[in-house]
Amino acid sequence: MSCRVYLNNAATTWPKPPAVAEAMYRFMTHGGANLARGSASPGDLETMDQVLSCREELADLLGAPDGDPRYVTFTSNVTEALNVVLKGYLRPGMTVVTSSMEHNAVIRPLRRLEASGVTVRVVQCDAEGFLPLGDLGQALQGADLAVLCHGSNVCGTLQDLEAISEACRLRGVPLVLDSAQTAGVEPISVEDLGLGALCFTGHKGLMGPQGVGGIVWNPHMAEACSPLVDGGTGSFSHEEVQPNVMPDKFEAGTPNLPGIVGLRAALGWIREVGIQGIREREMALKGILLEGLSQIKGVQILGPRDSRRGLGVVALNHPSVDNGTLAMELSERGIETRPGLHCAPLAHRTLGTFPQGALRLSVGYFNTEEEVRMAVGAIQEVLRSHM
Amino acid sequence: MSCRVYLNNAATTWPKPPAVAEAMYRFMTHGGANLARGSASPGDLETMDQVLSCREELADLLGAPDGDPRYVTFTSNVTEALNVVLKGYLRPGMTVVTSSMEHNAVIRPLRRLEASGVTVRVVQCDAEGFLPLGDLGQALQGADLAVLCHGSNVCGTLQDLEAISEACRLRGVPLVLDSAQTAGVEPISVEDLGLGALCFTGHKGLMGPQGVGGIVWNPHMAEACSPLVDGGTGSFSHEEVQPNVMPDKFEAGTPNLPGIVGLRAALGWIREVGIQGIREREMALKGILLEGLSQIKGVQILGPRDSRRGLGVVALNHPSVDNGTLAMELSERGIETRPGLHCAPLAHRTLGTFPQGALRLSVGYFNTEEEVRMAVGAIQEVLRSHM
Repeated sequence: MSCRVYLNNAATTWPKPPAVAEAMYRFMTHGGANLARGSASPGDLETMDQVLSCREELADLLGAPDGDPRYVTFTSNVTEALNVVLKGYLRPGMTVVTSSMEHNAVIRPLRRLEASGVTVRVVQCDAEGFLPLGDLGQALQGADLAVLCHGSNVCGTLQDLEAISEACRLRGVPLVLDSAQTAGVEPISVEDLGLGALCFTGHKGLMGPQGVGGIVWNPHMAEACSPLVDGGTGSFSHEEVQPNVMPDKFEAGTPNLPGIVGLRAALGWIREVGIQGIREREMALKGILLEGLSQIKGVQILGPRDSRRGLGVVALNHPSVDNGTLAMELSERGIETRPGLHCAPLAHRTLGTFPQGALRLSVGYFNTEEEVRMAVGAIQEVLRSHM
Repeated sequence: MSCRVYLNNAATTWPKPPAVAEAMYRFMTHGGANLARGSASPGDLETMDQVLSCREELADLLGAPDGDPRYVTFTSNVTEALNVVLKGYLRPGMTVVTSSMEHNAVIRPLRRLEASGVTVRVVQCDAEGFLPLGDLGQALQGADLAVLCHGSNVCGTLQDLEAISEACRLRGVPLVLDSAQTAGVEPISVEDLGLGALCFTGHKGLMGPQGVGGIVWNPHMAEACSPLVDGGTGSFSHEEVQPNVMPDKFEAGTPNLPGIVGLRAALGWIREVGIQGIREREMALKGILLEGLSQIKGVQILGPRDSRRGLGVVALNHPSVDNGTLAMELSERGIETRPGLHCAPLAHRTLGTFPQGALRLSVGYFNTEEEVRMAVGAIQEVLRSHM
């Protein structure tokens, strides 16, 4: 038992597998070479090997077409990844389809693009956060691109990705998937689902450090996108224009090498434990949390009624106290959660909780059943004091 | 004495001060909260404090106007920083002035912008890499922006920044400085020089990890630029458009927290040692290197004849062996250097070394005199074997 109960894993998973910090420390103290910018010394070669191996792990886990690691691009986070794909693909006059459950990492770049002449169609999700397939199909007519989140960061609603990707494929609309909450927790294959691109972050379900995320591309999409950042690639150095080969095209400048090395260690851990095992553990913990909350009078749970159709994320409100106060008083008891709007105003509108937001509790693999019970007890205690 | 002599500090400084890896390890194992995305728990507050403190150190070291840390933006590297400023400011029809000594981190974004209707004026530098002030003055007439490197990554040529920034101020042209090779080694003040923006990287002279760089802004420039990346900022979460307040405007998505924490530790080390001390040490080491090289027949040194007008970077060629072979054979002897074009084809054209490039040796604070002498000996040995 710890006096700190961390239930904010949807913001960043915590703790990380010990191998992550260890690999980063080893790199910072013993590696440190600069990728493709040295003299093929042993340090350089080891670093190149680690970066390639991280790409290979990601290509494998997320189903890069033909398992080709060149179609894994590193960015600094999923937000940048989404910006690269959306701003790289969409041109004035084009139409993009999205949903009302998106994070601002999707909505804000789309609003920027809208101002420059891109048409944005927002499909309204239902009160549980699910995307109605019929409405999606209609919106896709004549659209150029779709960008949708796989799982909600607010209340954990998990979309029917197979049906959604099939709807997009059927209408020839490339689908960009925001996997911020699902990569490492849910099985996803860019190849099998025929996605245009999958955007991921390294520090949530993938268990790596903050500062690294990326894209797994369909090669056609990578070809169609222009890069967001141009600069030195350590390759084609005689050319004054960005090279058009992968993975260099979207990776100018020195990469976050300690971050990539840390992510690689995290991916090794995930391969060992297995995402099925991770998901089952999180579902079991969520079950205990929901069971406990159901005993507390007046607690309103947002999102999917069928908890199997959700992630390890629970959002709630209670009429007797606002969620900010609730979070603060839980924090005083060592329980870390997240109140407010979760960078997703549109999702909260959809769920009927705008502008007040909700209290989010998100479990992770390293939480214990006892921690979850402590959290339930603390919520009960705080709520009782306000009733 | 080490069997590895690292003379590639212009690519990334190595080793880092021990505090860097230690701070990152501590963050990954004991910090780990996600900035402004939690519940104001002790971990969150400590992280916020560290990020703010890193901004303050940078504002202090690089002379942010009024010392205001909000005008320090974090990016993943200097390449991204330059892209943010150049693509955020320049619009079709505008004219930008640059030099023939730039890195592809400047040239490639400018070539991209040129294709969309921005006029790019390239001022030719002399054979030592210096920017002729008269030609600069002429090019600045009617220009909207200037972007120039402070010190060459190829041969260390250090521009006369005071004169250049005055020329720009005089003509009302905002100057964007690429400080990739100089931040942490040369004194620079955005405020005193009246710069529009300074772009820096954290992993070279600033001694931090790869994966973090940034911008120190003049507030007017920050106001005039639109962001490259839109998304969640952990602030103004009710809004579907990017907030226009600093530092949030240019920092969407989860930042590279371990990288920022590492950079902060590095900045503490720099403050202790002092950049004057760092520069003097590097100059002394370069002196030994140049003295040794001058004894070897046929070695051609690129860049400034007056070595005080340069950084701790020496580029050379020898008629009897190409620089790639030389680097490889030095590497076999444990001497790490960098051959080729150094992502700067235009600079090599200016120096008369395109397309063959040159061998670059770049010293750092942690090199020893003995290491430099070993490198000279190894160069002598390799060259002799080819003559």
